[in-house]
Amino acid sequence: MPYRSPITDFRFIMDHVVGFHQVAATDRFAEATPDMCDAILTEAAKLSDEVLAPLQKLGDQHPAVLENGVVRTSPGFGDGFKAIANGGWIGISASTENGGMGLPLTLATTVNDMMAGACLSLQLNPLMCQGQIEALEHHASDAIKDLYLPKLISGEWAGTMNLTEPQAGSDVGALRSTAVPNDDGSYAISGQKIYISWADNDFTENVCHLVLARLPDGVAGTKGISLFMVPKRIPDADGNLGERNDLRVISLEHKMGLHGSPTAVMEYAGAKGWLVGEKHAGMAAMFTMMNNARLGVATQGIGVAEAAYQHALAYAMDRKQGKAGGTGTIAEHADVRRMLASMKADIFAARAISLANAVAIDMANATGDGAWTARAALLTPISKAFGTDIGVEITSTGIQTHGGMGFIEETGAAQYARDVRVTTIYEGTNGIQAMDLVARKMMDGGDAAFALLDEIEAAADAAKATMPDLAEPVWQAAETLRETTEWLATQDITDRFAGAVPYLRAFARVLGGHYHLTAAAQGDGTRKRLATFYIKRILPEHTGLLAHVREGGDDLMAITLDDLVA
Amino acid sequence: MPYRSPITDFRFIMDHVVGFHQVAATDRFAEATPDMCDAILTEAAKLSDEVLAPLQKLGDQHPAVLENGVVRTSPGFGDGFKAIANGGWIGISASTENGGMGLPLTLATTVNDMMAGACLSLQLNPLMCQGQIEALEHHASDAIKDLYLPKLISGEWAGTMNLTEPQAGSDVGALRSTAVPNDDGSYAISGQKIYISWADNDFTENVCHLVLARLPDGVAGTKGISLFMVPKRIPDADGNLGERNDLRVISLEHKMGLHGSPTAVMEYAGAKGWLVGEKHAGMAAMFTMMNNARLGVATQGIGVAEAAYQHALAYAMDRKQGKAGGTGTIAEHADVRRMLASMKADIFAARAISLANAVAIDMANATGDGAWTARAALLTPISKAFGTDIGVEITSTGIQTHGGMGFIEETGAAQYARDVRVTTIYEGTNGIQAMDLVARKMMDGGDAAFALLDEIEAAADAAKATMPDLAEPVWQAAETLRETTEWLATQDITDRFAGAVPYLRAFARVLGGHYHLTAAAQGDGTRKRLATFYIKRILPEHTGLLAHVREGGDDLMAITLDDLVA
Repeated sequence: MPYRSPITDFRFIMDHVVGFHQVAATDRFAEATPDMCDAILTEAAKLSDEVLAPLQKLGDQHPAVLENGVVRTSPGFGDGFKAIANGGWIGISASTENGGMGLPLTLATTVNDMMAGACLSLQLNPLMCQGQIEALEHHASDAIKDLYLPKLISGEWAGTMNLTEPQAGSDVGALRSTAVPNDDGSYAISGQKIYISWADNDFTENVCHLVLARLPDGVAGTKGISLFMVPKRIPDADGNLGERNDLRVISLEHKMGLHGSPTAVMEYAGAKGWLVGEKHAGMAAMFTMMNNARLGVATQGIGVAEAAYQHALAYAMDRKQGKAGGTGTIAEHADVRRMLASMKADIFAARAISLANAVAIDMANATGDGAWTARAALLTPISKAFGTDIGVEITSTGIQTHGGMGFIEETGAAQYARDVRVTTIYEGTNGIQAMDLVARKMMDGGDAAFALLDEIEAAADAAKATMPDLAEPVWQAAETLRETTEWLATQDITDRFAGAVPYLRAFARVLGGHYHLTAAAQGDGTRKRLATFYIKRILPEHTGLLAHVREGGDDLMAITLDDLVA
Repeated sequence: MPYRSPITDFRFIMDHVVGFHQVAATDRFAEATPDMCDAILTEAAKLSDEVLAPLQKLGDQHPAVLENGVVRTSPGFGDGFKAIANGGWIGISASTENGGMGLPLTLATTVNDMMAGACLSLQLNPLMCQGQIEALEHHASDAIKDLYLPKLISGEWAGTMNLTEPQAGSDVGALRSTAVPNDDGSYAISGQKIYISWADNDFTENVCHLVLARLPDGVAGTKGISLFMVPKRIPDADGNLGERNDLRVISLEHKMGLHGSPTAVMEYAGAKGWLVGEKHAGMAAMFTMMNNARLGVATQGIGVAEAAYQHALAYAMDRKQGKAGGTGTIAEHADVRRMLASMKADIFAARAISLANAVAIDMANATGDGAWTARAALLTPISKAFGTDIGVEITSTGIQTHGGMGFIEETGAAQYARDVRVTTIYEGTNGIQAMDLVARKMMDGGDAAFALLDEIEAAADAAKATMPDLAEPVWQAAETLRETTEWLATQDITDRFAGAVPYLRAFARVLGGHYHLTAAAQGDGTRKRLATFYIKRILPEHTGLLAHVREGGDDLMAITLDDLVA
């Protein structure tokens, strides 16, 4: 059963659930007409289904390897990357002046969803490139933009992010890499970086590393960090490649999954780099890159969940076992139906949240309206954590649906679970996302959250006349979330952090209820039956989660390390 | 950080939570004095920590392989098995007349827990042997008992279970293997069996296969199935090994985890077998084996969860990151503390449930009291599904606690998750367990469930005077479960099956609350703080689960296959 991009779902969510028409109505994104969207979805689906999906197993079975200092990528990955680049998909939302398509991030998100579902380990490469392109567009000098952006957007060169060091993971401010000014305006970058995704490859002419390092006068912590462009091969002003820079891949990690994506330890030994943005302002530039990347990683979780769902559904509809009516397959059994419906309902919820997030980013970019900016900021950690959590859960349910076959690697169910496992960790662990939600994203006293809850309750109120059995529980869930949010916004940071993860999850559950309700109101019987399943069976999860949140931090922190060791 | 068997927890649960004293007070288990229990726990811990735990990674990195028809096991596994056998641990609860220790299953369960935590892939072998020993003790002729039991209990020979065929998984009755009478009273067994754990090895003299097959006059379905002993090498009446039987390992599976355990496709080509039990009564014998094995698999989930917890805790207490008080490690962060406390609280809950299950089995065996038999039958599917579900969840949380390191295989966190993943599938998927709970185990109208709920509410009532904040929510949760059980017991089978999995989970949550409350009443501050965490933060999960159950099956089954494909 080959992967098929779910373009009907994308179109339905854009048109009927998350209000994409608002984006298309802006001057900036006027080109994103319905016809253009259809063309984009159709072409990206073709690439994903026909070119990328066949590479997925190859990446797992023939991992990228380091040979004599050179990374050899998995069979077919070079051609796959070129197909992505040639389709213009790397620069789908990059500015047109450097060769991008200038289309909304919402469309880019659907394309990334399809490519991730088809072949996650390869798709991670263009995702990294997109993050670098956005960081350069916002922060780099014109000289750097002119030199790098056209090559990155065309896919001639690839890009990476270099944040983490052995002693500096979630705490980026602890990094020790150094940047010392050279005489020619460049900097000598030295240090070791770890977990560098797609640090090298054998199919692009150059690899451009964005590296966080500290200048001699940089203070300790995040406020003394600057961002540098450090290319593998040093280009002249016209983009002709010259000498090899003083950087190298020391080793590749042996990972649980995502074998097709080389994850490297990198060493910079006085490599030439160029400052991106202001001195000591590297974190701001990095956050541009990371915010986008967080939505991108959410999309990875969702895309892989979709692929795992399709895979499990095909198996269930083929596997005959026991006495069952209808098709005589296990898909007729109530518990298998429950698993499949859960998967589909959660994919819809997570995808709607992430596309609502993308719409908010597009609207913020197109209008500069602070309310959209706040909405985007609020939704980003929720998208990232929920999209990847359900990625882990749904791929596990996919294994379970296969029964014994799920544990056998040849079946393919296990690879989805192994590959997606890292998405709850990289680009900020989901615990970090939840802390971001209850701390930074509530520095407004909860205003952005309350504005969203107002919309949810208004929509539920409006739906009460026609669908009271679905609208009432969504309204009630939103109200319970509001009460907990009001409480949380007045608590100290330990109370907030203690309940951060269940709070984020409950928020996502309520958002899922809202989008399912919207779908039921706008859609056919299928949408309504799926919404009924979600709202009546899955949404109630929020009560237990919010009870957890309201316990605060005292009881939790009273559990001592001695208690845990005992 | 090496694995350390949690013998203090075993002792506490036995003495203060699940009433092991009742078992020790029976004539049959009078030998299980406190001193004897201490000796058993101490010796098994020594074996597990010092001999078995060092093998765990070796099994993963050097999987069992099939070479020229012969299975070559992982380095050290032969010596490990011999150490288990020499300690008498295979026959810990086997009858003394054939060399067993005759001790309670409760003690065997603690030993299996430790061995599984130390090295799951090797421990699966003696677990299979124990199941076979129990099946033979209950169903085999004296001749077969005399010939096989001493060798199986001593570990000279190993045992396997052969149920599944390609077209007959959860639906065992669909099997096609045949048994044709030979002239000498034996049978010629033919057919292909799959997913045979430890189907062969290079460290025991013989491997004894218990095989389900159909006699020529066997009707279709489960009622026409018989059980046969089919040894790899055919012994004479004195146990001297003779000719090679007509059976062979065709291939070994390439699995997500548990690489040290060879999982085979087996072919029987007219192999000589001997009937075990009555003709056409093979399923009854197999259920003896499987019921025990289900508790054994629960214990596997819990044992691996324990090992993953210890591993994550050690990492968290060592890893310095960000600003944190106390030790300056990530274990001081609220969200990491939450993860660690969740892991420990759920391990306690699952372990208490499984040991209460073992006590019920021991009491049923020692007294023949039908109430204990019913209690054991009720608890078995709950133990199996909950113990292995939390195995999957806790090993995933273990990965998450490690951050980026969790995805790197060398860390070891991923192996726990990969290894334990099969436990929710084999010995009856957890969906099958849940269906067993709401169907077969409620053929009494729910009496066994209500009897248990009576005990839980009585205990909570008694605790209200001293710990009202913990006792009240446990009582309330039990009452909500009772109401849902009363409703469920009157519903048709589709309604029951539609909510089976969330119902089982909610039942386990309530049981966990009960045992945590009992621990808080009996234990020190550590027990009370952990109970508070569980009861206030985790137990509320039951409300959403029971809401799911009470939706019944109509809305679920209204979701058509077309809806799922759409």
